[in-house]
Amino acid sequence: MSVVITGTVALDHVKTPQAYQENLLGGSASYASLAAAVFAQPVHLVGIIGKDFPEEHLAMLQTRGVSVDGVERSEGDSFTWSGEYFTDMNQRTTHKVAVNVLENWVPKVAGSAAEAKIAVLANMSPDNQLQTVEQCASATFVAADTMDLWIEIANERLHEVLKKIDLLVINDGEAKEFAGTTNLVEAGRKLQAKGPRFVVVKRGEHGSFLFGEKDEDFFACSAFPLSSVFDPTGAGDTFLGGVAGWLSANGKTEPTFEDLKTAVAHGSVLASFTCEAFSTHRLQQVTAADVAERLAVLRSYTAF
Amino acid sequence: MSVVITGTVALDHVKTPQAYQENLLGGSASYASLAAAVFAQPVHLVGIIGKDFPEEHLAMLQTRGVSVDGVERSEGDSFTWSGEYFTDMNQRTTHKVAVNVLENWVPKVAGSAAEAKIAVLANMSPDNQLQTVEQCASATFVAADTMDLWIEIANERLHEVLKKIDLLVINDGEAKEFAGTTNLVEAGRKLQAKGPRFVVVKRGEHGSFLFGEKDEDFFACSAFPLSSVFDPTGAGDTFLGGVAGWLSANGKTEPTFEDLKTAVAHGSVLASFTCEAFSTHRLQQVTAADVAERLAVLRSYTAF
Repeated sequence: MSVVITGTVALDHVKTPQAYQENLLGGSASYASLAAAVFAQPVHLVGIIGKDFPEEHLAMLQTRGVSVDGVERSEGDSFTWSGEYFTDMNQRTTHKVAVNVLENWVPKVAGSAAEAKIAVLANMSPDNQLQTVEQCASATFVAADTMDLWIEIANERLHEVLKKIDLLVINDGEAKEFAGTTNLVEAGRKLQAKGPRFVVVKRGEHGSFLFGEKDEDFFACSAFPLSSVFDPTGAGDTFLGGVAGWLSANGKTEPTFEDLKTAVAHGSVLASFTCEAFSTHRLQQVTAADVAERLAVLRSYTAF
Repeated sequence: MSVVITGTVALDHVKTPQAYQENLLGGSASYASLAAAVFAQPVHLVGIIGKDFPEEHLAMLQTRGVSVDGVERSEGDSFTWSGEYFTDMNQRTTHKVAVNVLENWVPKVAGSAAEAKIAVLANMSPDNQLQTVEQCASATFVAADTMDLWIEIANERLHEVLKKIDLLVINDGEAKEFAGTTNLVEAGRKLQAKGPRFVVVKRGEHGSFLFGEKDEDFFACSAFPLSSVFDPTGAGDTFLGGVAGWLSANGKTEPTFEDLKTAVAHGSVLASFTCEAFSTHRLQQVTAADVAERLAVLRSYTAF
């Protein structure tokens, strides 16, 4: 069972109160692919990079079971993001976004990637998400993420995406903005009414809410508690990839609400590792056994 | 098994996007007493009111099993709070606080109230909390709440309180401020190191974190999800009273971490009722069976 993940592959320049590093592997699809590959291999990564993209990042992805056959190499410069976290890790400032090779890019899903049963539209433009979906005819489960930028500048196209996906994953602030309400439960239900069978509202350090088809299909998933967060970049992408990877590894290509609950718990725990180091440095070392261990701890932390 | 609860008894003037009402029953001890009385009666309320305080509020408290023998009647005006909630119920603006009878008040814990095994120091000045503790010699478990005002203007006295209590209950923003960190897990542990065996960090719509004596003593309690919040005033006080009431009703006067977990889950669910109407209007109708019903739902919403 394989997973196809389309999204951005980026070079990140990240500053935290502790340190600063340049040319880190970033991008929604990079995190999501590595996350999915913790559970299910191969993962087909579809993205685009520029001539400045370090070969070592691609090599690392491959050692983790991520196929980079779908990563297009362009003569332009790679998509880059420069950002900074301050003492409060819940706040971040974007210093610069250089779209570069993403401009005019059309994702191409070919070969065995096109046969994947589970497709992930990681955060990228709704146009790119719609282009991907058209090429994933074999997919029985499609999950997508988005961000405030697209809610603001591509709202109509994003509504089209919602009609073609099974699961929307979105963070709390964006869910409120997109749904036009300040209540998270209401926001989740309003977004679900726009199309997707399932909605996950990510709540950062608090975890996530999963909404299913029936009124009683609700899951409040706690985050794995961390007493120190080093760099939360990519935690949401890791969550999404982890959900897809767990579903794929367990043959849940047409998942029920109960399947999604388990997948969400796995994705949530996996995201905690990403926060512990720059970029994918911690994520790229995580095993399924590491996740199982934290999951057991999380269960003991939440059961009553 | 009885509970003694000292704190403020107020007249609240509250504006929400839906409505405005004056002279509502408010105050930390009013909510906490009604909450505790859902599980355990009698509850001994210790507070002070002015000559303007409506008799009907006292009558209602008594019908719910709250003894008002410890409520002092003064010739001054009652403590009043005027506040407003906007569309986002997580934000509120205080328009006016009139201290009135609270000025120079010294709580008097007498009669059977002084024999209570469980004492609650609901939100009030650290001086009043320390005066209460001295009079609760029989108490084997003392729980306290506080607020940003006391952290700012009575920090040293508040530190003294921490050395005399078993459980601190504090909201997330205040926990971060008091502990000097932006990480909630670290904040909980830092506050615990200042004295109390147990710390609860309230997280509003996200629930609460409970910290116990051992590193692994951690409980992430989800809030009961509400798709609409009418007036969240007093939710935190309800939580605290609910915790104390459950402990008392179940004879847990020297509670273990496991006891606290169950108590926190009950307090959390009870707080959801308070948010559904102005003042104590919903809380004053809640039965233990109502709480048990929501608790079962919350369990199904969080188990995985």
